[in-house]
Amino acid sequence: MRVKKSVLIVLLMTALILGGGISFAVTEWLFVDESQLETTGITEEQYTDMLNELSESVQLPKVVQAFNQIQSNYLNDVTDEQLIEGAISGMLNSLGDPYSEYLNVETMKSFNEQIEASFEGIGAEVSMVNGVVTIVSPLKDSPAEKAGLRPNDQVITIEGESTEGLDLLEAVTRIRGEKGSEVVIEVKRANSEELIPFTIIRDKIPLETVYRDLIEKDDQSLGYIEITNFSENTANRFLEELSALEAEGIDGLIIDVRGNPGGLLEVVQEMLREFIPSDRPYMQWEDGNGEKERFFSNLDEEKPYPLTVLIDEGSASASEILAISLKEAVGANVVGQTSFGKGTVQTTVPMGDGSSIKLTVMNWLSAEGTSIHEVGVEPTIDVKQPDYYYSSPIVLEDTLRPDTVSNQVRFMQVMLEGLGYKLDRNDGYFSEETAKALQAFQADEELTGTGELDQQTADLIQTRIIERIRSGQDDRQKERAIESIIK
Amino acid sequence: MRVKKSVLIVLLMTALILGGGISFAVTEWLFVDESQLETTGITEEQYTDMLNELSESVQLPKVVQAFNQIQSNYLNDVTDEQLIEGAISGMLNSLGDPYSEYLNVETMKSFNEQIEASFEGIGAEVSMVNGVVTIVSPLKDSPAEKAGLRPNDQVITIEGESTEGLDLLEAVTRIRGEKGSEVVIEVKRANSEELIPFTIIRDKIPLETVYRDLIEKDDQSLGYIEITNFSENTANRFLEELSALEAEGIDGLIIDVRGNPGGLLEVVQEMLREFIPSDRPYMQWEDGNGEKERFFSNLDEEKPYPLTVLIDEGSASASEILAISLKEAVGANVVGQTSFGKGTVQTTVPMGDGSSIKLTVMNWLSAEGTSIHEVGVEPTIDVKQPDYYYSSPIVLEDTLRPDTVSNQVRFMQVMLEGLGYKLDRNDGYFSEETAKALQAFQADEELTGTGELDQQTADLIQTRIIERIRSGQDDRQKERAIESIIK
Repeated sequence: MRVKKSVLIVLLMTALILGGGISFAVTEWLFVDESQLETTGITEEQYTDMLNELSESVQLPKVVQAFNQIQSNYLNDVTDEQLIEGAISGMLNSLGDPYSEYLNVETMKSFNEQIEASFEGIGAEVSMVNGVVTIVSPLKDSPAEKAGLRPNDQVITIEGESTEGLDLLEAVTRIRGEKGSEVVIEVKRANSEELIPFTIIRDKIPLETVYRDLIEKDDQSLGYIEITNFSENTANRFLEELSALEAEGIDGLIIDVRGNPGGLLEVVQEMLREFIPSDRPYMQWEDGNGEKERFFSNLDEEKPYPLTVLIDEGSASASEILAISLKEAVGANVVGQTSFGKGTVQTTVPMGDGSSIKLTVMNWLSAEGTSIHEVGVEPTIDVKQPDYYYSSPIVLEDTLRPDTVSNQVRFMQVMLEGLGYKLDRNDGYFSEETAKALQAFQADEELTGTGELDQQTADLIQTRIIERIRSGQDDRQKERAIESIIK
Repeated sequence: MRVKKSVLIVLLMTALILGGGISFAVTEWLFVDESQLETTGITEEQYTDMLNELSESVQLPKVVQAFNQIQSNYLNDVTDEQLIEGAISGMLNSLGDPYSEYLNVETMKSFNEQIEASFEGIGAEVSMVNGVVTIVSPLKDSPAEKAGLRPNDQVITIEGESTEGLDLLEAVTRIRGEKGSEVVIEVKRANSEELIPFTIIRDKIPLETVYRDLIEKDDQSLGYIEITNFSENTANRFLEELSALEAEGIDGLIIDVRGNPGGLLEVVQEMLREFIPSDRPYMQWEDGNGEKERFFSNLDEEKPYPLTVLIDEGSASASEILAISLKEAVGANVVGQTSFGKGTVQTTVPMGDGSSIKLTVMNWLSAEGTSIHEVGVEPTIDVKQPDYYYSSPIVLEDTLRPDTVSNQVRFMQVMLEGLGYKLDRNDGYFSEETAKALQAFQADEELTGTGELDQQTADLIQTRIIERIRSGQDDRQKERAIESIIK
């Protein structure tokens, strides 16, 4: 009898720098195919025994000696836990692999939330509007919706404490909490003088990772599916939305994984098996000895319609597997910018006390067997977004005036150009022409036309830019993806 | 019978950022007063036994488990040593103290070289002149001098290999080596067509840390002593030079510790005992429980002449003890900029295999008992150097032209101002006025007057700036230090 065992395999990406100075850190993870551990043919008990045996045989006297020295002689107090976590993190750091890391009990919690694409809270999208924490919309069937919260409700207190002075993240952190626990918030609603109190019982809130659209153009219908993360339920949701689109009849499909940091390996594999026939591998992987394994589907035929995958600098890991394998195995177009370049697979090893270590165990390879690690997937059609997509936010200490030089002026220039104002330069020199464009913006927005960059003007420029990005009207990459199918 | 034991105590400063974007990392260290371990009253054997006992009693099963997991499952090969060093470094990192760190066998070697203010090599100061490694001067009595190397000799080969393409550090690294070993270099000398070969036996080369000068002004004589590091022999050398100055008769003394990163605690203590009488503490320290100890000299009287200490942002640790204690205990003036701010004392603990851990064990306090940690010593007379002292080097990718904006233009502007050229701005905007100043510089240096910033012009601007700094003609801090005594 073969013992089946699920092993959690993770793909992880850290500290990604985008153009324009925006940086962010994300985590991602993959389940491995269940067939994986079957091939080793050992039981879970045998595995545990082996581990214990190994633990007893190895001694780390030098580490123990250093541990004791620090505990006895260091100037300040230090806990054993702190040193032990430090030692484990230090061993993982010594590998020089940013994807191998220690996850303590708290980070494991958010790690699991990301894997499950869920969190514990009240289920309302909130935003900062004119300095006030405001409900954008309660999620469907969420505690927030059931309690009666409505769009545009202003959150004035949380647990009796004013939200004044909190930033959005601080407010969200206070609203969130364990499933089953209660939170009291008071909101101000238009047409109501008094604050309205709500007592809401927090629950587990699922996050959507798959969004579908049908694009009609030149008498053709294009399916469009955006995937924000490869989480536990993502493959099911993807196949659901794909079926719905196919039922309507589509002449092509665009899969958008821009900004998608990756996720569970099993999930992207399940998706690839829907597109790549059994006569060729849909992906491969390689262990530390260079031994390769090729993965095949049971699929008979390719889809009858052309495929395009949208990627950018923020597409990593599972997103990259999807893009390069569809490109190599079924000739999909890949539109956008060269992707992040993470070609390794991690597993999480529980340490028995709620913490885990995440460890790189495999290289994944494309359908044809190449690694994109630290290289990225090159698009077949290279398209950048307009410059303002990559601009950093404007951070002002003082009002900025003509004939000065600064990066903040540069960001403003790029954004004003994005909003359609004419400038002679965008290198950070605050020229006459720049002042005129700024005055024109101020006039259009009914602000005092100073031609100087003050906080109010900067905030409004950024609000307009965010609106413009959200409207999608300048999404050149998506336009080219549509053109790649409708010729 | 009391057993005497020397314990190596170190003050360490890492990653110091100066104004103008210049950053550097230095190490420093201190011996503690020998009286320190006597108070514990235990023998070295007892100490070792205690350590061993402790080692046996503590287990780190979670660390061992992580160690085994990494060794069995990590994608790439990894040595036990690497993981053990990683674990120790990780424990020290977890303290959040930049001065506690692991020193492996190699870093211990350069650490000891710094403590001893010596290195193993041939003893020649070298510089890069027109892209060629060139002997500036052989040190007195060094192997380089004995072998016959002379100033301006161009080093063409080292061990038969051309120096072309090497940077200065690479060349120096190849010339250096263990005491007793041989190195063959070939040099080109003016008035000689052929290369001249030299076979030089490397030796231990002591580094000078103390420099003396006698400044005559307004019929007064001022002693001036510069200290570059508090190394093993520094206190002796300092007292030697001080005696020589006092023998000539001085009306005041300037001690210059600008850019001095610190060193051995015992060394600065020995120096303080020469100036601060026995009726007041010359410094204090404090352990983790807040227990303080005050240190006293046997000195009867203060010096009959006034003292001034020169400090800057690069003066740290032992330099700061010297400055603040002379200020508080004998009313010395402190001239310059607020110092780095390192108020802790480290010890190195040998791990038995040539490596050590460096651990923060004490806070040192000023004569009056205040800590300057993360604050620095404030000067009594605040003086900045001219802006060009703090400028970053110009790094060009392309020739820079008028009506552009960049940091490189800013650095150039600051340097041209320093050289006496008139500009309308130094904010990085390449104005007409900037171009004119650049043309004037090019004319003065007999370069083509393009008014553009090319590599040749940039190199020459920097050469002139370095010459100007070395000449000391704009050393405002030193001028004010002299004025602080001669009123």
